[in-house]
Amino acid sequence: MPDRDALYFEDFHVGRRFVTRGVTLSEAEIIDFAFKYDPQPFHIDKVAAARSQYGGLIASGFHTLSAAFRMAIQQNIFTAASMGSPGLDEVRWLKPVYPDDTLHMELEVVHAEPSKSRPDRGRIRVAYTVKNQKDEAVLTFTAMQIVKRRAAEDASDAAE
Amino acid sequence: MPDRDALYFEDFHVGRRFVTRGVTLSEAEIIDFAFKYDPQPFHIDKVAAARSQYGGLIASGFHTLSAAFRMAIQQNIFTAASMGSPGLDEVRWLKPVYPDDTLHMELEVVHAEPSKSRPDRGRIRVAYTVKNQKDEAVLTFTAMQIVKRRAAEDASDAAE
Repeated sequence: MPDRDALYFEDFHVGRRFVTRGVTLSEAEIIDFAFKYDPQPFHIDKVAAARSQYGGLIASGFHTLSAAFRMAIQQNIFTAASMGSPGLDEVRWLKPVYPDDTLHMELEVVHAEPSKSRPDRGRIRVAYTVKNQKDEAVLTFTAMQIVKRRAAEDASDAAE
Repeated sequence: MPDRDALYFEDFHVGRRFVTRGVTLSEAEIIDFAFKYDPQPFHIDKVAAARSQYGGLIASGFHTLSAAFRMAIQQNIFTAASMGSPGLDEVRWLKPVYPDDTLHMELEVVHAEPSKSRPDRGRIRVAYTVKNQKDEAVLTFTAMQIVKRRAAEDASDAAE
């Protein structure tokens, strides 16, 4: 049975905004992520990072991206509707993220169109802005996302 | 003292290619990453994933991106020169990545220009293709990267 509070394609109208809760990236978490996935000195080595152009340890851009996206998933914005994403565009790391920075994410639907070939889904484009505790944008990107239509859920429910 | 085998801006000429070694993404690793950063059912729940359009568990796109990038870092392609990246463009997840898929990455320098304002560095654009064990492209993206010039390293060495 479809969840009446859940969001579907029809709910992601252009201009709709969402704001996630925050997450603090600890120094330990920054080093752990980077040691596994992006072991550059300015992400894992405090001594080398202090001598780098960043003046200290900073989070891997992949870590910032993943942690921020998790906050959107946790918020259940796409829980019911998500059918995955074909890709991201214009990923821009605008400012370094330092240990103990607290990030949240702001989302805005910038495009929405129903699928022409598949009546059960639509495609939306969402503009994401990750901000720190000073309200500075540290990362921006847009994502194409395939989302289920509510009508399709209702039809599948009626057929059961 | 600069490492004479290390790569600097001057070495990243347009058309130069690199191929990384591979990494196998286990089911456990796929679930661990997604449970933390992208907890959608088709990434963390085998039962739900079997009923999804993917027919089974697939890796988070952020996981594929991070794991593939790690292979480039591990190869030491950018060890000496990397000064970070302003961003990525046209990130495209082309095929699902399933448990036990083995990924490697192919890189090609597609643009290179010295910085006009800062003589110690240049900017390159690299086209990345992540392929699976069947040589199918599962992810493509391009990255802008800021890299040190060899001349700057030599000058800083001479000044010491």
